[in-house]
Amino acid sequence: MKQEELNQQFAIIGSGSFATALAKILNGNGVPLNWCVRNQNIIDQIKKHGHNPSYLRSATFNTSLLTLTTNLTETIEQSDYLILAIPSAYTEEVLDKLPKDIFEGKQIISAIKGIMPNRNILLNDYLKNDFGFDPKDYYTIMGPCHAEEVASEKLSYLTFTGLDQTTTQWIADQFRNHYINTVINDDVYGVQFAAILKNIYALGSGIAHGLEYGDNFLSVLIANAADEMAGFLRKVGIRNMEVGVHKEPIPGVQLMKTSLRKSANYAASVYMGDLLVTCYSLYSRNRTFGNMIGKGFSVKAAQLEMNMVAEGYNASKCFYLINKELGADMPIATAIYKILWEDVQPAEAFEQLEQVLI
Amino acid sequence: MKQEELNQQFAIIGSGSFATALAKILNGNGVPLNWCVRNQNIIDQIKKHGHNPSYLRSATFNTSLLTLTTNLTETIEQSDYLILAIPSAYTEEVLDKLPKDIFEGKQIISAIKGIMPNRNILLNDYLKNDFGFDPKDYYTIMGPCHAEEVASEKLSYLTFTGLDQTTTQWIADQFRNHYINTVINDDVYGVQFAAILKNIYALGSGIAHGLEYGDNFLSVLIANAADEMAGFLRKVGIRNMEVGVHKEPIPGVQLMKTSLRKSANYAASVYMGDLLVTCYSLYSRNRTFGNMIGKGFSVKAAQLEMNMVAEGYNASKCFYLINKELGADMPIATAIYKILWEDVQPAEAFEQLEQVLI
Repeated sequence: MKQEELNQQFAIIGSGSFATALAKILNGNGVPLNWCVRNQNIIDQIKKHGHNPSYLRSATFNTSLLTLTTNLTETIEQSDYLILAIPSAYTEEVLDKLPKDIFEGKQIISAIKGIMPNRNILLNDYLKNDFGFDPKDYYTIMGPCHAEEVASEKLSYLTFTGLDQTTTQWIADQFRNHYINTVINDDVYGVQFAAILKNIYALGSGIAHGLEYGDNFLSVLIANAADEMAGFLRKVGIRNMEVGVHKEPIPGVQLMKTSLRKSANYAASVYMGDLLVTCYSLYSRNRTFGNMIGKGFSVKAAQLEMNMVAEGYNASKCFYLINKELGADMPIATAIYKILWEDVQPAEAFEQLEQVLI
Repeated sequence: MKQEELNQQFAIIGSGSFATALAKILNGNGVPLNWCVRNQNIIDQIKKHGHNPSYLRSATFNTSLLTLTTNLTETIEQSDYLILAIPSAYTEEVLDKLPKDIFEGKQIISAIKGIMPNRNILLNDYLKNDFGFDPKDYYTIMGPCHAEEVASEKLSYLTFTGLDQTTTQWIADQFRNHYINTVINDDVYGVQFAAILKNIYALGSGIAHGLEYGDNFLSVLIANAADEMAGFLRKVGIRNMEVGVHKEPIPGVQLMKTSLRKSANYAASVYMGDLLVTCYSLYSRNRTFGNMIGKGFSVKAAQLEMNMVAEGYNASKCFYLINKELGADMPIATAIYKILWEDVQPAEAFEQLEQVLI
């Protein structure tokens, strides 16, 4: 892909809060958009009122730049850059039905923060395995980004990740404006794992709050979690080098020499920033779910009460399995897994955890 | 110092909130204490009511273990371990008056989080220069530790730092109990610089809030600040090796092989944890001060309004000068310095800063 290819057609698949935020950014930047929304009623409302009635109502759209449809196949066929922004829990269900050659010649930009639950792999590996999708045509777009702050145009940083630096930068440029700063890097596995891990730690912050630990302990827990995350990502980087995914041993830590703005290390916004904004947010579903677990609700009761599944719940099991192979030192993620999946009492697991935090 | 020296006399000098918290911990652990308090009225109240009327009123004392006095010289002479817990701004004023041989044979444990403002050096260097005090007899005790949470016995981590590992561990053991976990390391310069730097970044978080940045940006700012702090501390570690203070290049990053619980790296609680608890605390004076600056108050007006000086204000200048020599890459601390000391408009400084954060 070259930078001069300016007339490439973007599509967004999904209409949740992050999808709506991304649509608002591109729409405000004058980028024409095929927007695939599951529910015709929402499409009608966006067309009529210029905003999504379900998410970020204050974000208004120039509807002349939007082609709204419920037809996924058509959206894909008529677009070059496909931004996938559907919940990870439903991604396989949605994509499994599609013809295996539908993504040929397409660029996929994932805004999905989760593991494919049935296969326990990241989206890029699922696409490669099931669709023969070339990893070079795969990109991600990650926060830290409460969508509500995009709606109110508060400055947010988005990190774009891909193996081809020129195209990654070009995609990032489509999003950049007065309230969006962009960063690029090439750590495709690292940014996706970090986005999932942060939900586990946010759930853990909630458990700690439910157990009535205070701010002093929370800061110790989150600082140690940042270190635990970095240790896992380094292991991923080393493995990727060994299997030939990357030339460099630790992709996230390598500078991209020619980029304007680079994610240089695991303290960068896409790693530690996203962890902080999620763990310290009082509105995080993962934190709320964890809080109930800490207060003594069973997983089942907490799910019924919240009428939803917090992403960190499934993620904790996925990571436990993935890390069995990698062998990173992850006492915090492991404690959370054991509380949620092996009926270990939260107070007991945290008492053990207290002894290894520094 | 050997571990069998159990009958060593501890003293606390100061009666602010952190001093009172430390007194509560030792008192509850049954450690007899010489407590030097400036104001006789406070001493009378502690004796009469069993708590400090000015700070942490809910922390009660077993007064039979306390020897309360306003006499500093006597306190020092009658004690072996001197915990200094007075504000850094007044430390020189208090200590300058003392005879130069008064600390001979004493161990000093600093709970002071600041630079000696007249000399722009840390307490250990001031003591060495002015009192010929041996760096081997110098220790520090650092958070992350909101004193209020110690009063309510919420689990908190304290890090004890000193060059002699056995004594450092022994001191830590005097504090350890069901709500205090202890960590030790030997990074005497690093932990003190981190404790000061965090106030600068908390002030910066306040400025960002005053300028109406949101949580997304705040997380980017704090993550980048953690990285900036680590970069500075690595430079300090390298310099200390060069001038022979340490054998190891990066003391904070070295494991202490025989300790039970070690601060292994700059993600540990004493570095990143303290940064997080301070930057995310709504009650931090530095954050409140920064918020006023961000909203357009002058430094003078903010100081008059708050009727106090936020530690981060002086610290930002001290660090600017110290880092001129060290040359660490510190765009965040520099921006804050320029806002506070060189009349650069907050909005302007932050717009430049936005461009270098990742």
